Amino acid sequence: MTSYLITGAGRGLGLELAAQLASLPTSQVSTVFAAIRSSTPPSALQTLIDHSKGRVIALTSTVVTDRASLDKAAAQVEALLNGKGLDVLINNAGVMPPAFKGIAKMDNLRYAFEVNVEAVHETTSAFLPLLKKGTGKKVVNISTTLGSMDHAPKYKWAPFPAYKISKTALNMLTVQWAQEYAEEGFTVFAVTPGWLKTDLGTENADLDVSVGAKATLHVIGNSTTEDNGTFRNILVPGWENTDGPNQYDGKIVPW
Amino acid sequence: MTSYLITGAGRGLGLELAAQLASLPTSQVSTVFAAIRSSTPPSALQTLIDHSKGRVIALTSTVVTDRASLDKAAAQVEALLNGKGLDVLINNAGVMPPAFKGIAKMDNLRYAFEVNVEAVHETTSAFLPLLKKGTGKKVVNISTTLGSMDHAPKYKWAPFPAYKISKTALNMLTVQWAQEYAEEGFTVFAVTPGWLKTDLGTENADLDVSVGAKATLHVIGNSTTEDNGTFRNILVPGWENTDGPNQYDGKIVPW
Repeated sequence: MTSYLITGAGRGLGLELAAQLASLPTSQVSTVFAAIRSSTPPSALQTLIDHSKGRVIALTSTVVTDRASLDKAAAQVEALLNGKGLDVLINNAGVMPPAFKGIAKMDNLRYAFEVNVEAVHETTSAFLPLLKKGTGKKVVNISTTLGSMDHAPKYKWAPFPAYKISKTALNMLTVQWAQEYAEEGFTVFAVTPGWLKTDLGTENADLDVSVGAKATLHVIGNSTTEDNGTFRNILVPGWENTDGPNQYDGKIVPW
Repeated sequence: MTSYLITGAGRGLGLELAAQLASLPTSQVSTVFAAIRSSTPPSALQTLIDHSKGRVIALTSTVVTDRASLDKAAAQVEALLNGKGLDVLINNAGVMPPAFKGIAKMDNLRYAFEVNVEAVHETTSAFLPLLKKGTGKKVVNISTTLGSMDHAPKYKWAPFPAYKISKTALNMLTVQWAQEYAEEGFTVFAVTPGWLKTDLGTENADLDVSVGAKATLHVIGNSTTEDNGTFRNILVPGWENTDGPNQYDGKIVPW
């Protein structure tokens, strides 16, 4: 009977996470709050909601870069949970702005920080009182191996410096939250969902979004307080040890 | 005959770096551009300028968070260098905002990103044409072991999450610049100057600012393209292996 809240749930990984959670028995998943920026759910999410028997609830007009909007969403969730807490927050909303003209011309670092780091911080802060009341006490920050400084040499080809830098910062934000709420039994960690065939990941990606979402939910579902403050990789059979840059071995990703 | 530009040179580490560079023979140091935010140099910097025989030059009203201001400073430096390039840029300006009420109440992450990361990016971009013309081709970003994710557990006590997160991001920014300009012979790296007795470091710090500045200049002076993209520690005799959290062993700092 775990409740989840997912940001950026209108499409891509966020939508797929919501759909897969909704497909699990009610004994495992009670409610999935799908936070979206738009004022009405995109059709795929609306279809999911319509078939969910009330278990998937859209939090429309939730702008993660606007704290007032987040506080409003938190009040809405609080009312809907009817005295219970929120168990798992998945900070999934993110952007990957390119710098095709090179690092010196990179002009979107601020934007990347706002959406990929500051918004995660504000979202977590806004839902913290509900998370404290929950039994899961999990905060999952969707990160990427492109944010790993150890892995940087092998991702030199990818022209997304603002994405990389902001996700590195997200990992350190994760560590800071993990340190502070460890004593209260929280599990705050970062996970890379793999390079997925979504609007963000493009068709060139390694994995279907369903594969990445399933593997990500496996990591989340099996996480314990031992995972607090870590950066976890997904495990995908056949991708444990590839010759290419990407591997999905289920292990800790080096910083 | 190396030319240097130091941001945040009005006080603390920046001022001390400028002073120590100015004390070296002209065969080693030609010019020290001291970039400061204020419209007139603080008295200590003015005294240094007065005794420098024209080798220390203040770049007043240089606001590192304002690109137009940086471009103006770059034009000023270009004119003063009279056809030569700038050899070494030391991105020293920084802030360390606290979060005494805990991470959930941290409200200065944006500010830390602006000054400690975005400003470094814009400063490096603004001076890039001059650095390309220089023979040193060094960009030195003043970082801190508090920005090391590997070291995070031992710095849990320090209530400066925005500082830590922004410096982690600065390290990744450093890696991105290093990767892109490696082929042009640049050496872009981060260095931790130690915990210094300055306004920022307080009197509780480990080292006198003169000790940290000297050790930092030793790292910079001895750096080669082998150091490109690394995070370097200073070496301070007696501090190579301490029982406390801080050690200054001259080695690579883990990310």
